[in-house]
Amino acid sequence: MAVYTQVTAEEINEFITQYDVGEVVSFKGIAEGSENSNYFLQTTEASFILTLFEARVNPDDLPFYMGLMDHLNHKNIVCATPVRDREGSNLKTLCGRPAALITFLNGMAVNRPKPEHCRQLGGELARMHMAAADFDMSRENDLSVSGWEKLVADCEAEADRCAPGLRNVLNEELAFLKANWPVDLPKGIIHADLFPDNVFFLDGKLSGLIDYYFACNDFFAYDIAVCMNSWCFEADGSFNITKSTQLLKGYNEVRPLGQQELQALPLLCRGAALRFLLTRLYDWLNRVEGALVQVKDPTEYLTKLRFHQEVRNATAYGLDM
Amino acid sequence: MAVYTQVTAEEINEFITQYDVGEVVSFKGIAEGSENSNYFLQTTEASFILTLFEARVNPDDLPFYMGLMDHLNHKNIVCATPVRDREGSNLKTLCGRPAALITFLNGMAVNRPKPEHCRQLGGELARMHMAAADFDMSRENDLSVSGWEKLVADCEAEADRCAPGLRNVLNEELAFLKANWPVDLPKGIIHADLFPDNVFFLDGKLSGLIDYYFACNDFFAYDIAVCMNSWCFEADGSFNITKSTQLLKGYNEVRPLGQQELQALPLLCRGAALRFLLTRLYDWLNRVEGALVQVKDPTEYLTKLRFHQEVRNATAYGLDM
Repeated sequence: MAVYTQVTAEEINEFITQYDVGEVVSFKGIAEGSENSNYFLQTTEASFILTLFEARVNPDDLPFYMGLMDHLNHKNIVCATPVRDREGSNLKTLCGRPAALITFLNGMAVNRPKPEHCRQLGGELARMHMAAADFDMSRENDLSVSGWEKLVADCEAEADRCAPGLRNVLNEELAFLKANWPVDLPKGIIHADLFPDNVFFLDGKLSGLIDYYFACNDFFAYDIAVCMNSWCFEADGSFNITKSTQLLKGYNEVRPLGQQELQALPLLCRGAALRFLLTRLYDWLNRVEGALVQVKDPTEYLTKLRFHQEVRNATAYGLDM
Repeated sequence: MAVYTQVTAEEINEFITQYDVGEVVSFKGIAEGSENSNYFLQTTEASFILTLFEARVNPDDLPFYMGLMDHLNHKNIVCATPVRDREGSNLKTLCGRPAALITFLNGMAVNRPKPEHCRQLGGELARMHMAAADFDMSRENDLSVSGWEKLVADCEAEADRCAPGLRNVLNEELAFLKANWPVDLPKGIIHADLFPDNVFFLDGKLSGLIDYYFACNDFFAYDIAVCMNSWCFEADGSFNITKSTQLLKGYNEVRPLGQQELQALPLLCRGAALRFLLTRLYDWLNRVEGALVQVKDPTEYLTKLRFHQEVRNATAYGLDM
């Protein structure tokens, strides 16, 4: 939680003249988001989020993210959408950073999702997958198998500092996933980071998805696996099969899952667990004392990985097909 | 800039039922304020700031702050005001912290105030002083002479780590101020921390004052001295007499300054400079690696103190009376 780049009143007043959105009424830095700087901006006409993209985001990927949000919004998937300036551009520069003015999405993230939240999540995820089918840009998932390979190489020497025996776990899991990773599952645009923080609810109803800045082309079912990891485990590390059943049901009602996808779920869940274990481990090993962002616990995802390693087939996730 | 206490969607939804303000539409932590946790809260009816008071605020002082904001608001001084719950209370508890729901004030702090901003500031400061005259609570200024004495005692041994010779400067200045501090200037409620961050402007007009959490009873002219230090120096340390002239003019138009007050200004400015030098020095010496809040530079106020030490009379501040 942080604002990395400070934008002054003078700078935002000047910036906003490029858009047809009225005049600034209020402007406050938001203590959310661990990658970018976000501001809440209220104008005489509406509310917005101003995002300044910081060093970890590849500027070359920004047109893909902006285009995707725009596309989904036109397809009635409720998500924050970049606003175009008077010249039609939805990506600008402010304080030396790429910057986007994004529509404000009502709702709040839930801290402890209930099964009903998981069901709605599943449905919206499937709708999003289908709505993106005719989006004409693509972005490779740089945090799939070859990305994990790089992260293991970067982290393995120091991994046991985080958890004894972790180096072996990482190497064995990577070898297993490389040998068994599917090649022919249904693919398309996925969100790839749909944690509870990135899903808003209002009055108990899902009100929108945010933070598309890991979106890419990959297996649809891998997106489900990311959600299974982030929505269906309890704080004590136990897996909640009621929640995963609802997640899968919600999804399956909108976009029926094929047998191959279901069979691949345990493997995909292992891959998703390894992905977040590795990025958290990288951040943990490279943490800077005094940094604004709190480093997340890598071992949470080690526990999740171990759970999926024991799963023999998708019935462990509760969908009885 | 930080949110120290995390409030979940479930907790804020529950909390808000105690008020007659509609239902929660949006809730986001704000990266502002170095003492308390602040959230932006939008309901179906209006926008608010939710403040959770953290360890540095004395809970016994909160009824004074809440009462003062309430009083000033009724006197048409635009400031954020605590909202009362259904039982009439404007001070509650949330997540184990004292908490207040405060009305949302439009406008933005200016980063580089211009003379015109200073003039408006002066006028509003004088109006605030007069509006608080019949407020029936009081709070001693614990950051006046006896407070400085404690801070010098706490900091002097290590002070030279911050700036060579600082220990001597502190002791000599404290001795001088103790011997010369005025006793009979006009007194009343003062803001005592009216930095540019705490004054909002909208369309170039002053739209309100925030952050009354240092307010106390002291000399009115001391409040001007605090503003003189925080509004009238340039980033390079030079004093801008045009700004101070406008500040004093704006004030004097609303509440004419007496000869005694004007004569005391150089001394009061030294006191105000020492006060912020000491609290910044204390924070600097006691800074924790990894803390969320960036420690402000104490030597900025050493430079300001030195300027005021050379001032022989109030004409150096530009008001020719």
